[in-house]
Amino acid sequence: MANKITARVPRGMRDLLPEQMLVRRYVFDVITDVFESYGFQPLQTPVLELAETLMGKYGPDAQKLIYEAGHAGGKEQLALRYDLTVPLARLVGMYGDLPLPFKRYQIAPVWRAERPSKGRYREFYQCDADTVGVASVLADAEIVSMMVEIYDRLGFTNYRTILNNRKILTGLGQYAGVPDELLGGLYRSIDKLERIGFDGVREELIANEIPGEVADRLLGLLEASGGDNLGALAAIKGELGEFEIAVEGATELEEMLAYLEVMGVSTGVIAVDFSMVRGLGYYTGPIFETVVEEPRIGSITGGGRYDELLGMFSKQSLPMTGTSLGIERIVDVMTELEMLPPSVGKTVTQVLVTVFEEGTRDVSLGVAAELRQAGLNTEVYFQGKDKLGKQLSYANRRDIGYAVILGPDEIAQGQATVKNMGTEEQVTLAREALADQIYQWMG
Amino acid sequence: MANKITARVPRGMRDLLPEQMLVRRYVFDVITDVFESYGFQPLQTPVLELAETLMGKYGPDAQKLIYEAGHAGGKEQLALRYDLTVPLARLVGMYGDLPLPFKRYQIAPVWRAERPSKGRYREFYQCDADTVGVASVLADAEIVSMMVEIYDRLGFTNYRTILNNRKILTGLGQYAGVPDELLGGLYRSIDKLERIGFDGVREELIANEIPGEVADRLLGLLEASGGDNLGALAAIKGELGEFEIAVEGATELEEMLAYLEVMGVSTGVIAVDFSMVRGLGYYTGPIFETVVEEPRIGSITGGGRYDELLGMFSKQSLPMTGTSLGIERIVDVMTELEMLPPSVGKTVTQVLVTVFEEGTRDVSLGVAAELRQAGLNTEVYFQGKDKLGKQLSYANRRDIGYAVILGPDEIAQGQATVKNMGTEEQVTLAREALADQIYQWMG
Repeated sequence: MANKITARVPRGMRDLLPEQMLVRRYVFDVITDVFESYGFQPLQTPVLELAETLMGKYGPDAQKLIYEAGHAGGKEQLALRYDLTVPLARLVGMYGDLPLPFKRYQIAPVWRAERPSKGRYREFYQCDADTVGVASVLADAEIVSMMVEIYDRLGFTNYRTILNNRKILTGLGQYAGVPDELLGGLYRSIDKLERIGFDGVREELIANEIPGEVADRLLGLLEASGGDNLGALAAIKGELGEFEIAVEGATELEEMLAYLEVMGVSTGVIAVDFSMVRGLGYYTGPIFETVVEEPRIGSITGGGRYDELLGMFSKQSLPMTGTSLGIERIVDVMTELEMLPPSVGKTVTQVLVTVFEEGTRDVSLGVAAELRQAGLNTEVYFQGKDKLGKQLSYANRRDIGYAVILGPDEIAQGQATVKNMGTEEQVTLAREALADQIYQWMG
Repeated sequence: MANKITARVPRGMRDLLPEQMLVRRYVFDVITDVFESYGFQPLQTPVLELAETLMGKYGPDAQKLIYEAGHAGGKEQLALRYDLTVPLARLVGMYGDLPLPFKRYQIAPVWRAERPSKGRYREFYQCDADTVGVASVLADAEIVSMMVEIYDRLGFTNYRTILNNRKILTGLGQYAGVPDELLGGLYRSIDKLERIGFDGVREELIANEIPGEVADRLLGLLEASGGDNLGALAAIKGELGEFEIAVEGATELEEMLAYLEVMGVSTGVIAVDFSMVRGLGYYTGPIFETVVEEPRIGSITGGGRYDELLGMFSKQSLPMTGTSLGIERIVDVMTELEMLPPSVGKTVTQVLVTVFEEGTRDVSLGVAAELRQAGLNTEVYFQGKDKLGKQLSYANRRDIGYAVILGPDEIAQGQATVKNMGTEEQVTLAREALADQIYQWMG
């Protein structure tokens, strides 16, 4: 065997201890419930993909962050998945005969070698829901509606889901007379609106050789959005009437807003904002992003329509739309702000059966088996020689709700004592009545 | 963007489509339930470990199968985990102050670049439960008891859990006069007993310079096991009385058998067998393995005590014991043999709300929202222009149990028709009564 080495994890990665796992399980369960209530099906793809599957999909900056993998003598160039969207497109391309529409969700880790910082990890989970094969923005509206339901159920009250459309952004570029190869720069400037303000964006646009008058009209359109959604879309249609793609994009968002209303989504949480630009290159239609405003944790989810990605894997492309929830940030914030229901405990164990002395251990083991039979998660105290007080403080420290005490007298009479660790109430009763008593305390 | 590429997964890896995911979820839920009923807590470690954490732990043959990973400019040598045991030891070494005993389970994928074959994948899940900090074989007995409960709950009826002890194997080596460096060869020969029979093993032993008389006594001891458990242990204690380590090993197994009985494990499923040798080098005490005999699927789980592994990461070692369930094989066999309860369906969707015509889609969306509110997983038919017959056959094909039909007349009267796709029964009723009717059919 090897020499002693320091026990460490790779940079930016971490273990999830039981208490953290229980918080995540609660959040994942809420998300899974909502996804499935809309008929999204669970799916899983391998962690490793062929490198060629991922390369060329995310843009050069992102590509540098991809982890590569391989094994001694292996001939394949492999990589760890960077997101769940490209693997989905690969899967759809591979199974030519998937029944459509194909609505799937996946909750799984992805890897990105970004500079680690608070709340930013190199291995982190994404929760994705996507619909394949539906060209109508009905599918986009359903995704947004589902996300809003998730935020509500998790207890987020002050958030905004921002809508835009890549088609409107394309139209704005045509309108500003920006050649295709410089569009990226235009979008990056627009995207900074919240950070650097109108004057800042105006300066950048002019530095990019956009005439002052066009820049002002562009900024006017950006200003129009973020308030009255339908008004902003009407303004696009008015001002950019000759740019067909912009009109198409605005019409799609009008349709989406109408569907969202029918689906019961409060219009107050939806904001059309033409300055919202999502980085990833593969979006082609509506894009969406949710920003939590109080506490100011920023974007927790983003997605959109990407009707051409599949075409990279398959002769025929199919419309696809979906979103990805930034679950790590959600979990961190919910933990910090104590947004978790009291049912999320520190342990799965509900009952500790103590061991009075060496000779009574077998009885304790038997009682534990009975309690498990009755559906209670039950541990037996394993460090046999500890005093009862130490055993009870173990239960306390571990946040175990109930402790069973089996002294020789109780055993002789077929009885047991059970203690409610929260209220310190204590009852001695027949061994068969233990589980009922605990369930009664549980409510 | 890149050129078109073929959509493929890496060799030996696979996607899990929704139907497969639902089977796995059922199996994982049973396992999780049992683990937690014994107070084992969920835990997660990163997929990537530092290469030095894994290297030197599994033996040279296994080590060749490890996948390595890294990213552009990254300075760390990384590897994908090969099992869940070494990462657990690394974690325990890293968090010096974990409260003991630390009982954790982890259900997660591991990677091994083995030659792929039917049922053998390069990315596959393991379900591990381990106890850290308990020297008593009480912990080993609990692990075995838990496993037996899992097989029972999954519906396996004909299996055997085989027990042996590394200490007995060491004793047998001393008894046979085999020097330490040749012990590996002795164990490999013994391990072949079932395949090559007594004569085959005898030949190998003699080829390895073990005197014929010693070989015969060794084989006699092996023969004694596999039937009367206590008798076999008594034979070891008699024949190997002068080899302290063998006596200690036999006593531990006697204790384990006694605990298993107290825990309610049927003695019929437990077989002491001195020819069972588990490959991994890190075991130090009792070892266990479960073999499913009918159908003959072989070993589905194995584990044991490894009290020295932690010492490779930490100044002070701690006793550890645990097991790993070969879940892929279990899932495959349960699917092949149709061992799944009827509640495991092909889809999570319970209700399809059809769309009669373009103009009624909004009503269908509204009804779907109501059914979701009532707790039913509900899809709306998305390909708007299809005829009702096509929509119903979609529900059938997808194994969706109930379909709601909302024609213009029904809508005008605040009614809806619901069809039980299984029985073909069909009822028209008030829209508000839909969910109740479906729940009634569900029973």
